[in-house]
Amino acid sequence: MLKKLLKIEEIEKIFNIKIKDENIWLEALIHKSWLFYHHRSDLPNNEKLEFLGDAILQMFVSLYLYKNFKELDEGKLSLLRSNLINRHRLGDIALKLKLDKIINISPILDKKGKLTVLGDSLEAVIGALYLDQGPEITQKFIQEHILQNIEEIIKKGEIKDPKTYFQEIIQKKYGFLPEYKILDISGPAHQRRFKVGIFLKDIKLTEGEGTSKQEAEFEAALKAIKKLEENNFEEF
Amino acid sequence: MLKKLLKIEEIEKIFNIKIKDENIWLEALIHKSWLFYHHRSDLPNNEKLEFLGDAILQMFVSLYLYKNFKELDEGKLSLLRSNLINRHRLGDIALKLKLDKIINISPILDKKGKLTVLGDSLEAVIGALYLDQGPEITQKFIQEHILQNIEEIIKKGEIKDPKTYFQEIIQKKYGFLPEYKILDISGPAHQRRFKVGIFLKDIKLTEGEGTSKQEAEFEAALKAIKKLEENNFEEF
Repeated sequence: MLKKLLKIEEIEKIFNIKIKDENIWLEALIHKSWLFYHHRSDLPNNEKLEFLGDAILQMFVSLYLYKNFKELDEGKLSLLRSNLINRHRLGDIALKLKLDKIINISPILDKKGKLTVLGDSLEAVIGALYLDQGPEITQKFIQEHILQNIEEIIKKGEIKDPKTYFQEIIQKKYGFLPEYKILDISGPAHQRRFKVGIFLKDIKLTEGEGTSKQEAEFEAALKAIKKLEENNFEEF
Repeated sequence: MLKKLLKIEEIEKIFNIKIKDENIWLEALIHKSWLFYHHRSDLPNNEKLEFLGDAILQMFVSLYLYKNFKELDEGKLSLLRSNLINRHRLGDIALKLKLDKIINISPILDKKGKLTVLGDSLEAVIGALYLDQGPEITQKFIQEHILQNIEEIIKKGEIKDPKTYFQEIIQKKYGFLPEYKILDISGPAHQRRFKVGIFLKDIKLTEGEGTSKQEAEFEAALKAIKKLEENNFEEF
């Protein structure tokens, strides 16, 4: 049973490692859709390792971006990071790595569902790699497989005007426009600070701050786009 | 000038370290509100280090929770993490550490604004600590100062029924109720999978999946609460 679920040779080949703790890898390679399908509640699923791996991935990607893109501001770094590790891209990378050969998932998923599961499971695998092999090997893996083609992503991901971009998305998605409301103005006349919120039908999505209304709106729109991107433009 | 902005002795005392790279600490200890107030655009602000420090903090907290709370599922781990590192708590910890003695912020902020800035700057400081002193010292700092009183937080943060809890928050905040809609049902009759979305006035906040409608709603509500918690219940 274990042998069928845990393809040790294949894992060691894909990651170029010698496995130390088989239990960690067993946990990483069982997706909950497999357990649903096989009615097995006695085995672990990889959601907790996905929780851990997601944070590890964010950390090493952030560290790389901070060190290598000194000229970009925080907003651009965030956009770039969410472009690098969004669910679609992780799914594609997982497929390229042939994780579908080692991860146990339900056979009844459609193509899109399978890609999502593979992307999520890549995060679980990164969690397992960290626990089993340590930070250096994990960092190297992330650099080789997640941080490749980064210049290309920078070109595609560059957004010149977040307000216009966000407005277009919302118009298309809901058929109405986002509203900007001033939430607070503080400071003396020559040093005003503005706080602005973006609202969709009275529901506040994000806030931005700045020395002008425009600057605050810009920040609020940038944050809203980030949230959408992180959720594949499906939800906030 | 540098000496006034960078209080080396105080920093070394607070963190019990010997500073290696003064530039990293200078960057960590200038908040943009100080630059606004003093009309200085020639100096860096700490937003990029906050971006990095936030990811570092998430990672070490996730690692600690994964290793020490085996009995909790992914949803509980996420809730616990956002309880540990929400903005309010980080602001309080920063004040306890006396970061207000070393961080340069605008003198015209009110008490709440100051706490927010201090909490954000604590993340920047964690970024600086990592870059200047390495992962071990950073991990130790996080364990000593962020991961204390964790049992108490578990007790307070325990949410028995996320649907009821979420409904109460939304009712209070907006005066109407969240709606649950089934987005997808798949699989054969004996192995159904449900996908459910939570909507506020037709705006989808989150999705949940499960073997029953109830399970999917539970997950969607849990995710929605997490989002609110991460944003101090102010926005999604």
